[in-house]
Order: sequence, then structure tokens, then C-alpha cells
Amino acid sequence: MKNAWFYEKLYPDIKIGLKIKKKIYSNRNNLQKIDIIDTANMGRVLVLDGIIQTTERDEFIYHEMLTHLPLLSHPKPEKVLVIGGGDGGILREVLKHKIKEVVLVEIDKEVIATSRRYLKKIESDSFSDPRVKVIIDDGANYVKDRENEFDVIIIDSPDPIGPAEVLFKDEFYLDVKKALKEDGIMVRQTGSTFLQNSELGDNYKRLSRIFKIIKIYLAAIPTYIGGFFSFVFASDGVDPEKLDYKNIEERYKKLKLKTKYYNPGIHFACFSLPNYVEELKG
Amino acid sequence: MKNAWFYEKLYPDIKIGLKIKKKIYSNRNNLQKIDIIDTANMGRVLVLDGIIQTTERDEFIYHEMLTHLPLLSHPKPEKVLVIGGGDGGILREVLKHKIKEVVLVEIDKEVIATSRRYLKKIESDSFSDPRVKVIIDDGANYVKDRENEFDVIIIDSPDPIGPAEVLFKDEFYLDVKKALKEDGIMVRQTGSTFLQNSELGDNYKRLSRIFKIIKIYLAAIPTYIGGFFSFVFASDGVDPEKLDYKNIEERYKKLKLKTKYYNPGIHFACFSLPNYVEELKG
Repeated sequence: MKNAWFYEKLYPDIKIGLKIKKKIYSNRNNLQKIDIIDTANMGRVLVLDGIIQTTERDEFIYHEMLTHLPLLSHPKPEKVLVIGGGDGGILREVLKHKIKEVVLVEIDKEVIATSRRYLKKIESDSFSDPRVKVIIDDGANYVKDRENEFDVIIIDSPDPIGPAEVLFKDEFYLDVKKALKEDGIMVRQTGSTFLQNSELGDNYKRLSRIFKIIKIYLAAIPTYIGGFFSFVFASDGVDPEKLDYKNIEERYKKLKLKTKYYNPGIHFACFSLPNYVEELKG
Repeated sequence: MKNAWFYEKLYPDIKIGLKIKKKIYSNRNNLQKIDIIDTANMGRVLVLDGIIQTTERDEFIYHEMLTHLPLLSHPKPEKVLVIGGGDGGILREVLKHKIKEVVLVEIDKEVIATSRRYLKKIESDSFSDPRVKVIIDDGANYVKDRENEFDVIIIDSPDPIGPAEVLFKDEFYLDVKKALKEDGIMVRQTGSTFLQNSELGDNYKRLSRIFKIIKIYLAAIPTYIGGFFSFVFASDGVDPEKLDYKNIEERYKKLKLKTKYYNPGIHFACFSLPNYVEELKG
């Protein structure tokens, strides 16, 4: 594999290249193409349909920000739903909290099997934890029948192309709202603020019609090129910016989360938006 | 140029690729190779020795953060020194403030000539402003003879390879300190926190021995891949985090800066460091 490079196929005119050490796994199933590549800089990389999902070296940023921010914003999270997240990274972070149960709904069982086999550093044997319940199903289908059940719902899905498209619609968000307990929290990724800004803008506007409180928050993630990467936080009861810093800090310390990106300062700073992002709210 | 790509040569095992629309200019002089490329996604790009310096589409982030943050932190900036910055982007932002004079010291006159000709959108005719004094010299050499002269010194240089290496040494920083007035401010770029973290760590430690107050601040810049991009702020009198928000906001509004990234919220939030960056302080 000397001098072989993997180039991501997300954008037509800008791309990231990673030098390949070894191709570990490749298979096309009825849903998508799954690749695991070992790279010189970022360690092993999970690629779905040519698009980087996560890498061993920088996965901590995405997984910490999509987990600890909502879980520490919620006063007492006990039951969590993860939609997507078959690599197990979100699961690993959720399990660091004092939760009773976490349900993970992944559409493609091969993503889980492949991650458990080849991405052990990310998955960290989280799927074996007795608090975890795995369901192989379309997340949009799963939430249809749920009511007043979850404290936090984390949507860890790819961009709205391919099987994840249904996870960006009004109907789905209305079902998510119904599945949440009172004052529950939903978070999701909404892509690059610079290169995929309609994904952020559309979701922000859509969710603003459904939830009372909706906030954009940001993180800088090396392998998701395009400046700030964005997330949205939606709730009918919790405003994550109006929480008490001391309380967040105390809970953060008590849980001994050993985070590498998230901390109480970041919890509040990540809601400060550059003007060009603020304008996407429309 | 159909299907032709420019790949940056900064890192051996990770790279950004930009689809080329047209090659505008290319020349190797006795200091460095200068290229201007028109790209499909980022507009025109200035490339020195194969490394992206600035692009029309995202230059505002770097230039705003390296200018407005120190200039609004200083109570009354009147005389500013820019070392490097031959593309004119920093100059354009500095000139939006009520300054009396800005001296720009660029080692390579061809960078200025090329930018004035091909990067008009960035340069915005700033070099014609009567408050601007241009000196073609090595920045390290220029500051040797200066004493108690500048309110703010902005070091807009490439990474410490090639002609810019001398701008990362103790001797240079001691001269910069001497060239500053009491309570003056120096800022510089220190590269990617994730891929060039020794550049940030080394400069932080080095400057901590020379200045009383030294702070790291961050921005996410699409064409500088590698997660958060870093800057350091150094002063013997001004702590940019301890300023009054209302005062910064008032001055920001009064100047009508029309920024696209920087705002008073970002002014304070950009000092919140993820744990992995905090650890680089050593």
C-alpha cells in the first residue's frame, strides 16, 4: 500500500486525503458499502459509501460532544436512546453516566459487527454492557411507537443521503418529541457549517417549529473538513446555556469522565456562534 | 483543467485537495515558490512552497481573528506593526480601526505585488491607504531597532519552515517585546492544535518565559485542516479574557466592523480550550 491514499467522496470540489497503511475490510451490502481502512495519521477509519464516519484518532471529539453535552444538561438522565451509532462510540460515552438503560437502534447490523471486530478501540466492548439493548431497525420506524420514554435521544446518523434521509424529516422529529419524557433532550449532528450549511439551516428551522428551545453548538473535528462542525440541541424544557456552571462542573468532576475535548468551559463556549453561522438561522 | 486537483504538501500523511478551475500565476523566486490558483470551492488561493496561505472564501476567519481580537483588547490602538501579511488581508482589517499608522514588514515583495494584482478581493486596495507604510525586510531584522513604538504587533507568518523560521525564536520575541509600548499586545498564529501541536506547545512555553500574560485562542478555518487552528496572545498588561463584555460590544458596534466570524461572544468563547489543547501548555 506504499503511497496509496484514500480520498473522501463527500464534496465534488474539496476533499480530504488520508495515506493508507492497510485496507482492513470492505463489503457492499443491501444498504451501503462499508470500509475499514488503517491510515498513517488517523488510525483506523470507518467509511460508509465513501464518506468518513469516524476515525480512531479524532473520534473522541464527536462522541464526547454528542453525549456529555446533552447528558450533563439533563438533570438526571436514566434512559437514553441512540439512533444509529453502530460503531459504539456514543454508547461508550453514554455508559460513563449513571444511566439505567440505553437503547441503540441501528439499521445495519453489519456496522455493529464490523466495529466490534475491527474498531475495538472505539467500541471498547460497550455492546457487552448489561445496560445496553440493541435493536436492528430503521430509527424512524422504531420511534413511531414510543411515548414518554426517554430522557435523552441522540441521533448519530450520517448525512441525509442514503438510508439516513428519513431521519431528517418533520414526521420523524415529531415522533422523537413524543418519545421523549417531559423536559427530555434531543441532539443530532448537522454537518459542516461552511460546506454543508443548508443541512444545518434546514434542520434548525425545521426543529424550531417543533421544539420550544433549539440551540446550535459547534466543535472542530479534524476529519470532518469544512471549519466548524455543527450539532443541534432541542428540548421543550432545558436550555443548555442557562444552566449553572458550578453545577455542571461538579457533576463533571464527580463522574470522572476523563474527556479529551469536552469540559465545563467548552459546554458553554460551544454555543458562541461566528456571525456566518448565526446567519444560517434565517 | 478538467478534473485537475491541487493537493497541499504540508503533512506527509493527511492532505486537503481543492479542484482547480484555473492556474493564475506561478513563479519561484530566491525566497520561495508563489502560486495563485483559482479553485471551484474556495475561490482564488495563495500558495507558498506548496502550502495554502489564504483563500478568497475563508480568509475572513483568520484575518478577523488575528486582527480584531488584539485591537479590541487594546484600550486605544494607534500604531500597529504587521510582520508578514503580504496578501493584505490583515491590513484590510486593521484599517477598519481608528489607527494612525500601520507598518507592514514583508520579506518578499513579490507576495505583495502578486496579491495586489490577483487577490484584489482580499487586499481591497489596502496598500494604497495613506496610513500604511510598507517595508521590504526580514521582520526579525526590522524589530531589532525598535523600542516602545507599537500598541499591537501582529505576526502573520507561515509555519517555522523556510524564511519564517527566524520568527519563532527567543531573540525575535524579546525584540518584539521591546518594540511594544507598555501594555502592548503581540499575537501570532501557531498552527493546527491537532496536527502541528508542537508548534503551539513550543511557542506557548517560549512566550510564557518572556511575557506576563500569555493566552491561547482558537478558530475553525476550513482550509487549514486539522481541527482547531490556534493563535497566541501575549502582553505584559492586557488580559483579553478579563475585559468587560459590554465595553467590547460597544466598541465593536461603534466601529461597524461588519465581521463574518468575529463578534463579542466569540471574543471570550475562543479562549475556552478543549482538554487536549489545554494539555499542550505542558
